[in-house]
Amino acid sequence: MSRPGPIEYADASPRVRAVFDDIKRTRNVEDVNNFWKYLAHDPAGLERTWESIKQVMAAGALSPLVKEMLYLAVSVTNGCGYCIASHTASARKAGMTEEMFGELMAVVGMANETNRLANGYRVPIDPMFEK
Amino acid sequence: MSRPGPIEYADASPRVRAVFDDIKRTRNVEDVNNFWKYLAHDPAGLERTWESIKQVMAAGALSPLVKEMLYLAVSVTNGCGYCIASHTASARKAGMTEEMFGELMAVVGMANETNRLANGYRVPIDPMFEK
Amino acid sequence: MSRPGPIEYADASPRVRAVFDDIKRTRNVEDVNNFWKYLAHDPAGLERTWESIKQVMAAGALSPLVKEMLYLAVSVTNGCGYCIASHTASARKAGMTEEMFGELMAVVGMANETNRLANGYRVPIDPMFEK
Amino acid sequence: MSRPGPIEYADASPRVRAVFDDIKRTRNVEDVNNFWKYLAHDPAGLERTWESIKQVMAAGALSPLVKEMLYLAVSVTNGCGYCIASHTASARKAGMTEEMFGELMAVVGMANETNRLANGYRVPIDPMFEK
Amino acid sequence: MSRPGPIEYADASPRVRAVFDDIKRTRNVEDVNNFWKYLAHDPAGLERTWESIKQVMAAGALSPLVKEMLYLAVSVTNGCGYCIASHTASARKAGMTEEMFGELMAVVGMANETNRLANGYRVPIDPMFEK
Amino acid sequence: MSRPGPIEYADASPRVRAVFDDIKRTRNVEDVNNFWKYLAHDPAGLERTWESIKQVMAAGALSPLVKEMLYLAVSVTNGCGYCIASHTASARKAGMTEEMFGELMAVVGMANETNRLANGYRVPIDPMFEK
Repeated sequence: MSRPGPIEYADASPRVRAVFDDIKRTRNVEDVNNFWKYLAHDPAGLERTWESIKQVMAAGALSPLVKEMLYLAVSVTNGCGYCIASHTASARKAGMTEEMFGELMAVVGMANETNRLANGYRVPIDPMFEK
Repeated sequence: MSRPGPIEYADASPRVRAVFDDIKRTRNVEDVNNFWKYLAHDPAGLERTWESIKQVMAAGALSPLVKEMLYLAVSVTNGCGYCIASHTASARKAGMTEEMFGELMAVVGMANETNRLANGYRVPIDPMFEK
Repeated sequence: MSRPGPIEYADASPRVRAVFDDIKRTRNVEDVNNFWKYLAHDPAGLERTWESIKQVMAAGALSPLVKEMLYLAVSVTNGCGYCIASHTASARKAGMTEEMFGELMAVVGMANETNRLANGYRVPIDPMFEK
Repeated sequence: MSRPGPIEYADASPRVRAVFDDIKRTRNVEDVNNFWKYLAHDPAGLERTWESIKQVMAAGALSPLVKEMLYLAVSVTNGCGYCIASHTASARKAGMTEEMFGELMAVVGMANETNRLANGYRVPIDPMFEK
Repeated sequence: MSRPGPIEYADASPRVRAVFDDIKRTRNVEDVNNFWKYLAHDPAGLERTWESIKQVMAAGALSPLVKEMLYLAVSVTNGCGYCIASHTASARKAGMTEEMFGELMAVVGMANETNRLANGYRVPIDPMFEK
Repeated sequence: MSRPGPIEYADASPRVRAVFDDIKRTRNVEDVNNFWKYLAHDPAGLERTWESIKQVMAAGALSPLVKEMLYLAVSVTNGCGYCIASHTASARKAGMTEEMFGELMAVVGMANETNRLANGYRVPIDPMFEK
C-alpha cells in the first residue's frame, strides 16, 4: 500500500465533490487546499470535519478574525507546521495586520512561559478563581 | 529543604514589595494572586516576568479582551489548571461573556483536532501559504 | 564538533553491530532504519531502547497491529514527523488498511478535541470513575 | 459571572435534553457524565460534539474496544485527568483487561520516549517511508 | 473491575519484591514511592522501567544532579503533577538549591516561550546549524 | 501581505540594530541567527526577548552549559526543530560532548516515558513530596 496522495476534484467521488463544492462556495475560492484533499481519503471524516469547521468558524459572539487568531495561537502552541501556515494565511485574509500578528505571538509566547512557571512552582488555585 | 510556600507582602523583601505594589496599582486589586507570591522566591524572575506581562497584555493593536482569550486558548491547549482558572477569570473581567467562552472553546477544540489530522495525513503545505 | 550522521553497519562497532543484527533478524529486514543508525551514537541507549521496544511491541494481550496503531496515535498527537512516517509504515505492514487508518485518525482527532473541552470547562471527575 | 456548574437534566432546555436523551439511549446509561453536563452550556457545541463522538466511536473497521484504547492513549499522552479517568472506564466496559491496560501503557510510554529520541537526534525520514 | 490501587511490599509477588528490594538498596530508602507501587500491576513493565531508570540516572558524563534537573525540566514542560513533585524532591536530594531551582524554572520558561516564537515566525534553520 | 522574511542588519531600523549589536557583542559572533532576524518584525518583542534571554542564560547558580542543556531538553520535548538545531549548537559551544548529549537524550526520553506512566496509572502524590 503506497502513501496516499491528495485527491483532486477530477478524481473525487460525488460524496467528496459535494463537500469540495460547499467549501469553494462558502469560502469563495477556486480550489480547496491540501488539508481537504488528503482528508478526502475518509469521506465521512471529511464531511464531519467540514460541517464542524463551517459551524465553529462562522461569525457569532466572536468575529471570524478573532476566531482565526485563536486557531493560530493553538497551532503555534502545538507546533503544527501545516496549520501555522494555513491559519496565518486565513487570519491575514480576515484582517490580521503584521502588528496584530506580533502581539498575538507575544501573548502566545508569554502564556507558554507562565504555564510552565505555574506548573513548576506548583501554584495552588486562588479560592476566588474557583467561584 | 521544605517545599516553598507563598511569600506574603508582610514577609516580602523591598524588591519583591516593589513588584507587588506595581501589580496592585496596575490591575487595581487589593492583593496579588498566588502566581506572583510563589514566583517571588526568584526576585529577578518575578521582576522580569511582571515587566513582560505588563508590556505584552496592555492594549495595542489587539484589545485586552482578545489578548486574554488568546492566553486562555494556549492554557487550555497545554492543560495548565492554574492558568485556565486565572485567565478565565481575567478574560471575564475584560468582558468575555459565556457565549464568547463557548465559541472560544469550540475553536480551541477544533484546532486541536485538525492539528492532528494535518500531522497524521502528513499534508504538504500548499505553495500559496509559503509566499 | 560536526553534526553526527547515521552510523552504517560497515562502520559500526561490534556492540552496535550486535544490536543491528538482532533488529534485522527479529524484523526480517535487510537493513535497520535511520532511527537506529542515529541512536547508535549512544551504544548503551541503543541496546536499552531496542530491548525495550522488542519486549513491548511483541504479541501479548494486544496484537502487534493494535500496538502499532497505539504507537501511531501517540506520534500523531505529539507531532513527531519521523515517528508518524515510520509507524504508519509499520502499522500497514502489520495489517492496517486505509479504512482503519481513517478511523484511527478520526479517534485521535476527537480525543485531542475533547481533551481540551474537558480542560477548559474544568469538568470534575465523576465519582464512579474514581472507583 | 460565577463559574458555571453542571447542567442537570431537570434544569436543561429541550435542546439539551434531546442530546442527553440520545446519549442515555445510545450508551444504555441512566445519566450522562459530567463532561456532557458542562458542555451543555454551549448547546450547539454539545450537539456537534455528541454527533461526532457517536459517529466516530461506533464499530467500523476498528472495534469499539480498539477505539477506546486509542482514545485513552491520546488522553494519557496529553495528561488530561478527566479524560484518562473516563476513558479508562469506557475501555474497561468495552473489554479492556488489566493485562491489556498494562501493555497499552507500555506502548504509550515507549512511543513518548522514542518520539523525543527521533526529535533530538534529528533523524531524517527514510526514503522508503515517503513512498 | 475496580480501579487498581498501590501494591504494597507485603502483598507483592516475588518478582515485584525483587524490584522493590533493588530500588530500596540502590536509593537507600525504606520504602519505594507510589510510582513503583502502581507500576507493579505490570511486573514486566516494572522491571524494564526500573532497569532503564537505574542505568540512565547513574553518574556518567553528567552528574546525578544535572540529570535530575533535566528530568524536572521535561516534567514541568509536560505538566505532569506527580513527576514534578517527585523529581523536585529528587533534585533537592541530589543538591539542587532554591537558587538553582529558580534559574532552572527561568530557563524552562524562556525555552517554552521561544520554542513558540520560532514556530510562529516559521524561522528557517540557519545553514551553520545543519553542519 | 506576503510572508515576512528575515530582516538583515543593513535594512534594520536603529532600534533593531541596537539589539543586533548587543547580541553580537555579548555572544562574540559576526551575525545574529535567523531567530532574531525574524523576531525583528516586532521590535518591542525583540528587545524584550533578548533582554530576558541575556539575563536568564548568564552564568549564575547554574553554569551556561547546564542552562543550554536544560533549554535543549525542553526543545526536544516540544519538538521544535529550529530550537533543537540552534540549542544543540549552543550547548556544544558551551562544552557539551557527544557523550553528554547521549546521556541528556536518554534522560529526556525516560522522563517523557515515565511522565505518561504516572498519568495513565493515576499515581497519587506521596505525602512526603508535598512537604
